[in-house]
Amino acid sequence: MGKKCIGIDVGGTTVKVGMFELDGTLVKKWEVPTRKEENGKYILPDVAASIRKVLNEQNISLNEVAGAGLGIPGPVLPNGFVEVCVNLGWREMNPQEILSGLLDGMTVKTGNDANVAALGEMWQGGGKGYHDIVMVTLGTGVGGGVIIDEKIIPGRHGLGGEIGHMRIREGEKEQCNCKGYGCVEQIASATGIAREARRMMKQSGEDSAMRKFGDRISAKNVLDCAKAGDKLAMEVMETVSYYLGWALAIVSMTVDPEVFVIGGGVSKAGTFLTDMIRKYYEEYTPISENKAGIELATLGNDAGIYGAARLILD
Amino acid sequence: MGKKCIGIDVGGTTVKVGMFELDGTLVKKWEVPTRKEENGKYILPDVAASIRKVLNEQNISLNEVAGAGLGIPGPVLPNGFVEVCVNLGWREMNPQEILSGLLDGMTVKTGNDANVAALGEMWQGGGKGYHDIVMVTLGTGVGGGVIIDEKIIPGRHGLGGEIGHMRIREGEKEQCNCKGYGCVEQIASATGIAREARRMMKQSGEDSAMRKFGDRISAKNVLDCAKAGDKLAMEVMETVSYYLGWALAIVSMTVDPEVFVIGGGVSKAGTFLTDMIRKYYEEYTPISENKAGIELATLGNDAGIYGAARLILD
Repeated sequence: MGKKCIGIDVGGTTVKVGMFELDGTLVKKWEVPTRKEENGKYILPDVAASIRKVLNEQNISLNEVAGAGLGIPGPVLPNGFVEVCVNLGWREMNPQEILSGLLDGMTVKTGNDANVAALGEMWQGGGKGYHDIVMVTLGTGVGGGVIIDEKIIPGRHGLGGEIGHMRIREGEKEQCNCKGYGCVEQIASATGIAREARRMMKQSGEDSAMRKFGDRISAKNVLDCAKAGDKLAMEVMETVSYYLGWALAIVSMTVDPEVFVIGGGVSKAGTFLTDMIRKYYEEYTPISENKAGIELATLGNDAGIYGAARLILD
Repeated sequence: MGKKCIGIDVGGTTVKVGMFELDGTLVKKWEVPTRKEENGKYILPDVAASIRKVLNEQNISLNEVAGAGLGIPGPVLPNGFVEVCVNLGWREMNPQEILSGLLDGMTVKTGNDANVAALGEMWQGGGKGYHDIVMVTLGTGVGGGVIIDEKIIPGRHGLGGEIGHMRIREGEKEQCNCKGYGCVEQIASATGIAREARRMMKQSGEDSAMRKFGDRISAKNVLDCAKAGDKLAMEVMETVSYYLGWALAIVSMTVDPEVFVIGGGVSKAGTFLTDMIRKYYEEYTPISENKAGIELATLGNDAGIYGAARLILD
């Protein structure tokens, strides 16, 4: 048996941990509750203890592990420093140094969770076989990651791949969480799609299968109605796809990836969604016949542990 | 005297060549006419002959040269292959292999001219001291280059840094050279600024110092009028800065550079221009207090030879 690598995806509720062969085979995965009390001071010791326990059970010594990668739900500076991570209560700390200290000096590398998920999809998911991918995660919010030459572009202020907070819609009156107006996240997240649907129902006098859900309509409801041919739901999805396709076209004029990988809960709509996005994406990239593909993510919630483990293979 | 490196910037009219010390000191620069006849087949032999001649005059042997970089006015694939370069008549060729052959196997590397200029500004110009810069060249068109970790992001289809062809304005009816509608180039190039001014004069009944130039107004005229306080000219520049600042904000959410460097003829307007762009850039990046700077390019037309020479230092 060869060396192992470990991927750790720190979320607000649970920490997911995966142990991998260096070729990307998942050997074992487990979860640890995220204890956020006292500014999250227990999180890394809990993770370290669980890793020691699992290695012990599997008869694997620490020096058979090439290293561990750590995905964090917030901005990470290039040296691994975290200025603030609201979701965990962390502030002004370097989690990779701390975790390394707790694991006898093991190599530990850190990345932003959305960036790390993108790396995971490049390694073993929807972007497998590609070197330059941009991932967009359409969940409660919209996350993203830019991978060029198989490496994350973290950004000098930790904002690399913050596709969700690109301003894309002029004239938006509601404010985004980032304090901006008209962000991709306000339109194309699950929350955003539901909001668009509520707006559309309010503005339009038309009948629609969406109306039975009222103000509690979800993105899934909208997508189900659109797939069933509901005209108003289709209009919502055209709006969403227009802005998303346009945003991806702009991204192409910056880093020109081989492929876009679409993940997150909304991406369960499958090729119905990616076909709609592609229509606008291609319309807004007339400069070249050679277009990046738009593919679906395949790793689901495991993208983070895959990508975190991949961090240490560089 | 240490080793030298050579930077070659192939333009449609002249080829600029520079010989540098490896620390970035320009030793000598010269020009060669660009002979475009017969699909540009004489261009590289002419360049090679001029390099041999200069080296001979300076008593420098070919093996005292670490290599030569080549900036090309068109898309370049990562391996240096050029599918088509309209301005030179080149098609389906690998200029770096050809030039290397003409110079006894010297290391030659190729890049797109706008990308290479960005690298030059990072090395010895407005982006000196930074590792991650995005350059935007506001000339007859709008070019751009993205440099991350001191390396060009060329893009998988040669479209990295094509800031000029980001669609940024909805509802534009005139077509861009790229066949798109609403590209940054249509608004923020010298041509674009003049066009905006003509539109503004047509739409508005207001008096303006710009009117004396009529339809032959230039970007410089517009900027001069704006600097002198002309209200309508200021409106033109607000429009230009709005779209440019917005585009840079979007770029920040993709690659998050340390600094933007603004070059090209329009950038002669200096901090008057960058201050206006910054106003919108900062408005549309509310997500972080830490903003990329917006600086002026300093190398002018020499950026290309600097950047081409820098190509071979990797």
